Amino acid sequence: MKRTDTSDWPCTIARASVIFGQSWNLLILREAFYGNTRFDQLQKALGIGRNILTERLGTLVDEGLLRRDPYQEHPPRYEYQLTDKGRDTFPVLFAMATWGRAHTLGPDEDPLIFEHQACGHDFDATAACSHCGVPVKLDEVTFRRGPGHPSYQLS
Amino acid sequence: MKRTDTSDWPCTIARASVIFGQSWNLLILREAFYGNTRFDQLQKALGIGRNILTERLGTLVDEGLLRRDPYQEHPPRYEYQLTDKGRDTFPVLFAMATWGRAHTLGPDEDPLIFEHQACGHDFDATAACSHCGVPVKLDEVTFRRGPGHPSYQLS
Repeated sequence: MKRTDTSDWPCTIARASVIFGQSWNLLILREAFYGNTRFDQLQKALGIGRNILTERLGTLVDEGLLRRDPYQEHPPRYEYQLTDKGRDTFPVLFAMATWGRAHTLGPDEDPLIFEHQACGHDFDATAACSHCGVPVKLDEVTFRRGPGHPSYQLS
Repeated sequence: MKRTDTSDWPCTIARASVIFGQSWNLLILREAFYGNTRFDQLQKALGIGRNILTERLGTLVDEGLLRRDPYQEHPPRYEYQLTDKGRDTFPVLFAMATWGRAHTLGPDEDPLIFEHQACGHDFDATAACSHCGVPVKLDEVTFRRGPGHPSYQLS
């Protein structure tokens, strides 16, 4: 089945889903944040087929989230480091982890704890307003068409 | 190709990816937040095949993110409302939209603007610490094994 290409839809979610709407991409990014950046490390950590891993890494390199660097010449071996664009995905992964903790784990099933060094406490991620810094409640958000909306001229 | 089932992996990202690692799920959730909850509305908004939409809605209902409610008896018609578990995904979608805005749009291509009624300003979502409320920087986070980590007994 051919995937629908949403990369040029006038929607940030649709465009972002080209990356995030693939489970292996999410898990490869997770590993990259943990520092597992070499092909064999990734394959072992994820139990993923070599051909699928090669394809997914290719996408993440092509889309500019990972940078492919040689770490050995004979035989040639590469590692995949997060670029700034790749590192910028961490709020997405934190938000997923927070949702996953709340809705997919039982008590005492936390596999990983996040500690915020700045305040010294374990934490979950909340969505906060970039302007005032206050946690955002969904019913306090107004959605408005922007200049890139297909019907902007009509609104 | 059979999808790898990551729903019981000891990882919140892996478990969450069962939902978020599917582009159509992300887009159906987006529509649900906009209030497009009826099958025909969803099909028209997304240009998605009826069989695929039926399957994805089934998953989101089975996983408890949407609730299927009748809104007409003759012929029977249903709408799909967000449950609390479904509404709790909004930080994930905000984080994706923020990343998408930063990395997939050109200037003046914003299709949708988010306005925070509490402070009256347009905003992007940032990840903040649930304990102290301060925006989280990645290099200020320590990851620690929790009781659900496979190697917790060893750590």
